[in-house]
Amino acid sequence: MTHSLFTKHEATLDKALGAIATRGYWSPFPEGPSPKVYGETANADGEAAFKAHLNRTFELDQPTTGETIGAEKSPFGITLGVTYPKADPDALLAASAAAQPRWRAAGPDAWTGVCLEILARLNKASFEIAYAVMHTTGQAFMMAFQAGGPHAQDRALEAVTYAWDQLRRIPAEAYWEKPQGKNAPLAMNKRFTVVPRGTGLVLGCCTFPTWNGYPGMFADLATGNTVIVKPHPGAILPLAITVRIAREVLREAGFDPNVVTLLATEANDGPLVQALALRPEIKLIDFTGSTQNGTWLERNAHQAQVYTEKAGVNQIVIDSVDNMKAVASNIAFSLALYSGQMCTAPQNIYVPRDGISSSEGHLSFDDVAKALSAAVEKLVSDPARAVELTGAIQNDGVMARIADARQLGEVLTDSQSLAHPAFPDARVRTPLMLKLDATADATKLTQEWFGPISFVIATDSTAHSLDLAASIAAEHGALTFSVYSMDDPVIEAAHDAAIRGGVALSINLTSGVFVNQTAAYSDFHGTGANPAANAALSDAAFVANRFRVVQSRVHVAPKTAPVTVSQTA
Amino acid sequence: MTHSLFTKHEATLDKALGAIATRGYWSPFPEGPSPKVYGETANADGEAAFKAHLNRTFELDQPTTGETIGAEKSPFGITLGVTYPKADPDALLAASAAAQPRWRAAGPDAWTGVCLEILARLNKASFEIAYAVMHTTGQAFMMAFQAGGPHAQDRALEAVTYAWDQLRRIPAEAYWEKPQGKNAPLAMNKRFTVVPRGTGLVLGCCTFPTWNGYPGMFADLATGNTVIVKPHPGAILPLAITVRIAREVLREAGFDPNVVTLLATEANDGPLVQALALRPEIKLIDFTGSTQNGTWLERNAHQAQVYTEKAGVNQIVIDSVDNMKAVASNIAFSLALYSGQMCTAPQNIYVPRDGISSSEGHLSFDDVAKALSAAVEKLVSDPARAVELTGAIQNDGVMARIADARQLGEVLTDSQSLAHPAFPDARVRTPLMLKLDATADATKLTQEWFGPISFVIATDSTAHSLDLAASIAAEHGALTFSVYSMDDPVIEAAHDAAIRGGVALSINLTSGVFVNQTAAYSDFHGTGANPAANAALSDAAFVANRFRVVQSRVHVAPKTAPVTVSQTA
Repeated sequence: MTHSLFTKHEATLDKALGAIATRGYWSPFPEGPSPKVYGETANADGEAAFKAHLNRTFELDQPTTGETIGAEKSPFGITLGVTYPKADPDALLAASAAAQPRWRAAGPDAWTGVCLEILARLNKASFEIAYAVMHTTGQAFMMAFQAGGPHAQDRALEAVTYAWDQLRRIPAEAYWEKPQGKNAPLAMNKRFTVVPRGTGLVLGCCTFPTWNGYPGMFADLATGNTVIVKPHPGAILPLAITVRIAREVLREAGFDPNVVTLLATEANDGPLVQALALRPEIKLIDFTGSTQNGTWLERNAHQAQVYTEKAGVNQIVIDSVDNMKAVASNIAFSLALYSGQMCTAPQNIYVPRDGISSSEGHLSFDDVAKALSAAVEKLVSDPARAVELTGAIQNDGVMARIADARQLGEVLTDSQSLAHPAFPDARVRTPLMLKLDATADATKLTQEWFGPISFVIATDSTAHSLDLAASIAAEHGALTFSVYSMDDPVIEAAHDAAIRGGVALSINLTSGVFVNQTAAYSDFHGTGANPAANAALSDAAFVANRFRVVQSRVHVAPKTAPVTVSQTA
Repeated sequence: MTHSLFTKHEATLDKALGAIATRGYWSPFPEGPSPKVYGETANADGEAAFKAHLNRTFELDQPTTGETIGAEKSPFGITLGVTYPKADPDALLAASAAAQPRWRAAGPDAWTGVCLEILARLNKASFEIAYAVMHTTGQAFMMAFQAGGPHAQDRALEAVTYAWDQLRRIPAEAYWEKPQGKNAPLAMNKRFTVVPRGTGLVLGCCTFPTWNGYPGMFADLATGNTVIVKPHPGAILPLAITVRIAREVLREAGFDPNVVTLLATEANDGPLVQALALRPEIKLIDFTGSTQNGTWLERNAHQAQVYTEKAGVNQIVIDSVDNMKAVASNIAFSLALYSGQMCTAPQNIYVPRDGISSSEGHLSFDDVAKALSAAVEKLVSDPARAVELTGAIQNDGVMARIADARQLGEVLTDSQSLAHPAFPDARVRTPLMLKLDATADATKLTQEWFGPISFVIATDSTAHSLDLAASIAAEHGALTFSVYSMDDPVIEAAHDAAIRGGVALSINLTSGVFVNQTAAYSDFHGTGANPAANAALSDAAFVANRFRVVQSRVHVAPKTAPVTVSQTA
């Protein structure tokens, strides 16, 4: 019998299956924080729910040592003071294992139905989660709502949909009948059981705890695994709320809530995480973070399937433009959005040193550089508006990186500190833009400078720009790649460079789509084809190895009679 | 435009897609070496083609050092004297890379069509390949024909079908239109390009060069990769014939034949293979062989997706039987078939020390052991018939293992040498069966004794037997697991043990299906859920990560007009 939660959400699932097949626009989770959609009091209720978490211990009825842990700080400068029940990894592994038999036996439609119900509840909690994301990551409210709420839910639903799309292809039973000529056919009944891997470990990041954490978490759950969620020590609350909601749904559906548990930690949790990641019980790891940590997991956690998103160098090639102002405005937005603290934010902007053509005539390299820096300066000229775009700087590492980057070359636009009208202690910095030379500064271009840091880089030609973009993406990783050209052969050459670099290409973005944004169900996030990530969100490869199939077969009476030789012949 | 070879074979592909979905019996490649099917002269022609290879250099127009290499020996004792063009791995890698752009650009329907045409030609060459398999592996002719020909072709087609089933889900283009309320929608056209990983390396084994080699080779090709086929030094010829046919089809279809190349080697090729397996150009590795080598690849070839089939301990639990004679006869066949030189051959046979119940009453442990050994002895009592079942021993390692195993316990049936009526120098050995105790001999049960070696093992109870089967499969690997019981709760407990051990279960096999056989399109071979293999033949996970998707997006004029506010309201 189909699980009732599957039936409840089946229409949504069907639409999602259609969306991943056609890859047009679709979402069941409205992205605007509108009172008409979410309710007149939704924002106030969500903010109150967020504030109720402050200066107390987050309640979570899972195995705990009895101690509390947690030291998140708001980049907007308010005191959080949230602590969490401290958990012994051994106890969580044991609880996760104990929760497995019943969860595993429930089967694909139950896993899917429970996931869809969790997502429906998470959507209702979008405002509470938005404030939690805002005050842990430093995202401005609108982005915290969209990326931390509906867009994260979309990426989760996408993963659930991919999982179901694979699971539904495995028949529960089959009848097999092999003809044996004049003899009776061989006939067997076969049973196919989807067997989850076991326990998954989700390692969250401090900038997009839900958006980057949900795909692995929901891919694990939707394929019948149990999950231990280990948030980044700097962004626990959004995932703690998520885990609590997941546990509520699991309990109501009659499952052990320890199917999903939270492992809250504080700074320097590396040794604890490494030890946990090598435990034989951990069969799946989803990681977002540094190349160093991600590569360590890929090379050492041999007992697990490891899915990583690491650092990359995102690049823009400017070859020729219709309207430089529109180009600069679009790029400036991408640079300023959340102060470049996005794995998809552009960094290297290549412009031929001899300049480019535009509908307004030839533009020199310096004209282009000036247009770009002017657009950034304009965008952040009004602090009250600027902070709603830039948000705040998540951590001291980004602050230090801005200072270091300033020494790399000629400053086109310096990073400034802005006063936040609502949060006087917020750590706000505007984008830093530098001028570099592709040849003279070659070694500076090949690493990620995570944060509000970008380079306008003089190249020999567009061909040189494309070659740099392809080779840096292939060798050092990239999640995004953008080209501006009025010339079709250059666009095709950019396609070739994108394939060589294994990176998604955006062409001539000048309006309301930005290179650092991807749309679930339509745009793959990452490709798995360069060092920035070994997987894409989401595709079949992201889900198909999270479960296995164990079959049985037994002889039965054949349905077909043996071929008889005609008696009258 | 769809590739003509895709159109030519589309009806077969459609049937294969149906077969993997319903998992009933199906095959387009007749398994019987019947003159009515393959042609009156097919056998004679195939044997002549095989003999034409002997004592000369195999012609293959691929990069070569100009030297020749190869020292295969027939387990049936005839002189082979086949040599192959020696290739420098660097030259093969370069040739493979040079062949990639055109092959990659051809796209999924061309990859699929070319694969299906290669398979159609391989099917026509089934007799030639059968003799090549027979005289390299030691398989008797009937098995060499079936497993080396049509069944291998089935497993190849299965992999191609799984690949196509995933590839067809990725649209080449999409139109994306996101409503913007009163404003015009955001509209984009998107292109999705399937990008193969690069060069695949297929590492063959000496017992089933085609059956175990084809799935990886064809999964690579069907997802647009190029392939270097490195056969086991003891079984090159079947894969050399295969590579030559593949190259013919590629050339005829207008592709660089170096899409598929052969790397022939001689004994002690370990260092060469290890160096090649770590090359950055090698993005995919398919390996069948020892646990030691497979684990080395999994842990060191980080630049590649690695698919391995390694050693395992296959087990049979006897709980109760309807007809002991039928049980023993079925098991004896499984033990004798190709002298147990199958990754799926049973080894550990568990019987409660207090005996079992049967329709003929209680049978003591010794009654069961005697029935089993008697069935083996009966099966091999007529040498002329026996050799058609056992074939010959592939290598000296198996010979030495028989001698070593003889020391492990009380011999129930000793392994004998048989004279082969047709091949006086054939190395034929009948199965060795020993009696062991699960507790006293615990350490002897947990390793694979590859070859005609089996143990009848006294356990405390069926529960003990099932627990051993599950834990040994989980910890040491297993590809097959078989239970005999008249008791439904025991069958269900065996299902649980199968899930715990991550191994496929066969129940009460007493007629024409044997535990060491799997049927393509219906039975998964391996599960990927225990140490015997990290993948299954075939499923979505076997193919989905052999390619990636690179997309582009560009703004276009929206098809939908903006939402207008009614003027009359």
